[in-house]
Amino acid sequence: MTPVQNQLVETVLQRFGPKAATTDAEAIAPWLSDWRGRCHGEAPALLSPGSTEEVAAIVGLAAEAGVPLVPQGGNTGMVGGATPPADGSALLVSLRRMNRIRALSPVSNLAVAEGGVILADLRAAAEDAGRRFPMDLGARGSATIGGLVSTNAGGTQVLRFGTMRSLVAGVEAVLPDGSIHNGIAALKKDNRGYDLNQLLIGAEGTLGIVTAATLRLVPGIAARAVAWVGVESPAKALDLLRMLEGGTNAVESFEILPEKTLELVLRHVPGTRRPLATAHDWHVLIEAVTTDPAAEAPAALLERLLAPALAGLAGDAVIAASEAQAEDFWRIRHSISEAERAGGPALQHDISVPVEDMPRFMVEGGAEVEARFPGTEAVAYGHLGDGNVHFHVRAPRGVDPQAWYAEDGPRISRHVHDMVVAAGGSISAEHGIGQMKRDELARLSAPSRMTALRAIKAALDPHNILNPGKLVTLAPDAARP
Amino acid sequence: MTPVQNQLVETVLQRFGPKAATTDAEAIAPWLSDWRGRCHGEAPALLSPGSTEEVAAIVGLAAEAGVPLVPQGGNTGMVGGATPPADGSALLVSLRRMNRIRALSPVSNLAVAEGGVILADLRAAAEDAGRRFPMDLGARGSATIGGLVSTNAGGTQVLRFGTMRSLVAGVEAVLPDGSIHNGIAALKKDNRGYDLNQLLIGAEGTLGIVTAATLRLVPGIAARAVAWVGVESPAKALDLLRMLEGGTNAVESFEILPEKTLELVLRHVPGTRRPLATAHDWHVLIEAVTTDPAAEAPAALLERLLAPALAGLAGDAVIAASEAQAEDFWRIRHSISEAERAGGPALQHDISVPVEDMPRFMVEGGAEVEARFPGTEAVAYGHLGDGNVHFHVRAPRGVDPQAWYAEDGPRISRHVHDMVVAAGGSISAEHGIGQMKRDELARLSAPSRMTALRAIKAALDPHNILNPGKLVTLAPDAARP
Repeated sequence: MTPVQNQLVETVLQRFGPKAATTDAEAIAPWLSDWRGRCHGEAPALLSPGSTEEVAAIVGLAAEAGVPLVPQGGNTGMVGGATPPADGSALLVSLRRMNRIRALSPVSNLAVAEGGVILADLRAAAEDAGRRFPMDLGARGSATIGGLVSTNAGGTQVLRFGTMRSLVAGVEAVLPDGSIHNGIAALKKDNRGYDLNQLLIGAEGTLGIVTAATLRLVPGIAARAVAWVGVESPAKALDLLRMLEGGTNAVESFEILPEKTLELVLRHVPGTRRPLATAHDWHVLIEAVTTDPAAEAPAALLERLLAPALAGLAGDAVIAASEAQAEDFWRIRHSISEAERAGGPALQHDISVPVEDMPRFMVEGGAEVEARFPGTEAVAYGHLGDGNVHFHVRAPRGVDPQAWYAEDGPRISRHVHDMVVAAGGSISAEHGIGQMKRDELARLSAPSRMTALRAIKAALDPHNILNPGKLVTLAPDAARP
Repeated sequence: MTPVQNQLVETVLQRFGPKAATTDAEAIAPWLSDWRGRCHGEAPALLSPGSTEEVAAIVGLAAEAGVPLVPQGGNTGMVGGATPPADGSALLVSLRRMNRIRALSPVSNLAVAEGGVILADLRAAAEDAGRRFPMDLGARGSATIGGLVSTNAGGTQVLRFGTMRSLVAGVEAVLPDGSIHNGIAALKKDNRGYDLNQLLIGAEGTLGIVTAATLRLVPGIAARAVAWVGVESPAKALDLLRMLEGGTNAVESFEILPEKTLELVLRHVPGTRRPLATAHDWHVLIEAVTTDPAAEAPAALLERLLAPALAGLAGDAVIAASEAQAEDFWRIRHSISEAERAGGPALQHDISVPVEDMPRFMVEGGAEVEARFPGTEAVAYGHLGDGNVHFHVRAPRGVDPQAWYAEDGPRISRHVHDMVVAAGGSISAEHGIGQMKRDELARLSAPSRMTALRAIKAALDPHNILNPGKLVTLAPDAARP
């Protein structure tokens, strides 16, 4: 720890008490790596402010002293965005103590949650009030509101409710100069100049530390139904989605996977079994939800809407007869990562293209990668209705994993990203940029776009205090204008 | 015209032909004032590029030569945001020639419209395809897509579909350095760093010229019904809205007005008549729309949902028996401005507060203004469900209008804005800042917020080329860092 860092920590301890900072290596250790173990860093101290005012004071002190800070939520990110730099130059700031739900109203359908509130806790609180916070993802037991806002998180309910950006009605944040941005009021209409809330959403903690957010709630679930449908192609799957959307707005999930991925799951995940009697080239998992107890039951709705699809769009279809069977269907979807790990080395790409173009991309893009990199197997599965799939490339059988990741991996990923950019798509649909995709972002963006991103960062964080090196790098001389 | 301006115009004419620029004073004159005649400016030339590439070239030339540009859409703004400065230092850039709808798909429910497309034309094109572009406002025959995006326009369908921000799926714009920002692809998920599209929406042409946008469409209207309800207070009106929302999502408009405003309309606008037999303190206009021809008819729906309200929430209610009667109800709402003009001088404030707080604000805020400025009459009407009302203060009888506007006007408006800020609200809910609210924005915003806005402007437009003096001013030395 440098003397300057040490002084900052001492000041924080003096002003805000022993809970506000620790230099205990054991307490800090879990927060130095991302949960997948891909990124590692060092930090001599972990600061844990207890209020927005304490965050503001800490950022103000850090700005004055020139000590960088790395904000951290639940540390469940996918791109190393919350992992500190390796040189120990930055201190960690955790919002775990700021875990209060300040307000929750089933009348206005809004909740105000502090940055450290865990997603599952907010969902439970909403449910207790007869409402729902319609964002869900695997890390719900750890991911926090501050991180979800700062990464514009996606998840499995985007089809109907959008990403975090659509769910945020207000943001409170501490800016890099230590001032508090108070944009927490839920104003449905507000045209007072550049929208700082929108700028902070998805900024990965590089422009501000999100200390609280006002979040939209939706009606609680009255009933749900889950269907499994076999189709011959992603194009047919998308036609099926459009047909369903023509008849209802109850479809909340529409996930696609290829037969080979289903087979991988059946092979590696005990207790899973094929939902339909026969094989199909592609499979779709559909969930429909109703919120009005008097509305047509979602199972009946899906049965009515899927029946005509069996004449051409769909090869076969089954609606889960029980909640247990519905869970079995979902278990297949959620076990894909586990099955892939068991299946050998694979490169993962979280990509999006315009929805209508995704069926073509899945088929042609997969074939192109397999042809160009012999022995690989490309599989695309996920959120077809969002134009977002996980495009994974599995290593040829028998390769040495370490060597393949080190040598072929970057080449293959660059090729996948090039295909995505050529299709007008995004190399990060929901995971963000962090440190893992930073150089690819710079390589693939128009120079004027990178200039604009750097200019914004330098304008709002001229001393490069907040999460330096994530998302964009500033030229060394630009960091001190 | 300065020699530098002259050379720029000559270059544009040479490169892009005679349609691309004019210096004809008569042709320029209509665009030098805002449509309400509140702001006047000068411009020695009007540039009319025919393509995004021509806009980019013009901005590039202007940046090089240091000639400011004022982008203009339909010139229907309310805050002088498109009026050039008085000193003739800037050239006007009109996108009127860029009026092509590049694509419109009823399958993906997206349209790509150039900046100069007129709102009414886009709405008509969507209707021809069996869809709807769900934004509507009085200026629909003149307002253009570029201006609607750049001002994050509101209108009468915000309750269900949100402001322009919610309807924009992609933005193409020319940035202040003359580069083209290509964010036009409709990606439902895209987390590649700071969201420049969001930053450009509502930036009033100060950060870029919006040359095209990808816009969301919704299903076409199958049927509509319009109801008029008398209530005793804004609080009851909001309770009524919440009750309706509990039973349907078909309510698209929910407009409130006080009895004295209704009386003003009945007195001054020929052919209007009271929808209900008796007077009520407050009135609500409700429109419900269905898009599924098989769904319950909206008139029956409103009748079913309003019936229980008559037991307490509502004093009386009537559902328009014909389309003509529905138009009569709407005519009252749309005639308020006309009636107010006939009723004498009035100050208009376009304000928002959190929705649940609006009933209190309307009643207490109105009483406070009337007490503080004796003889005035404060009326609030408009989009209650959006937390946005037009809060108008009418002059005492018999005052000299000019003197009242000049002397009392600013004091009263400052007081109204102070009340709004105290309530956590916005002094510009849907009209923007432009030049008319620029100083009030600076007066009422936290200093750190103004610092951030200026830093963003200076970072992206370091030479202050685009729409200078609108929204924020830069200190003279900040304009050339």
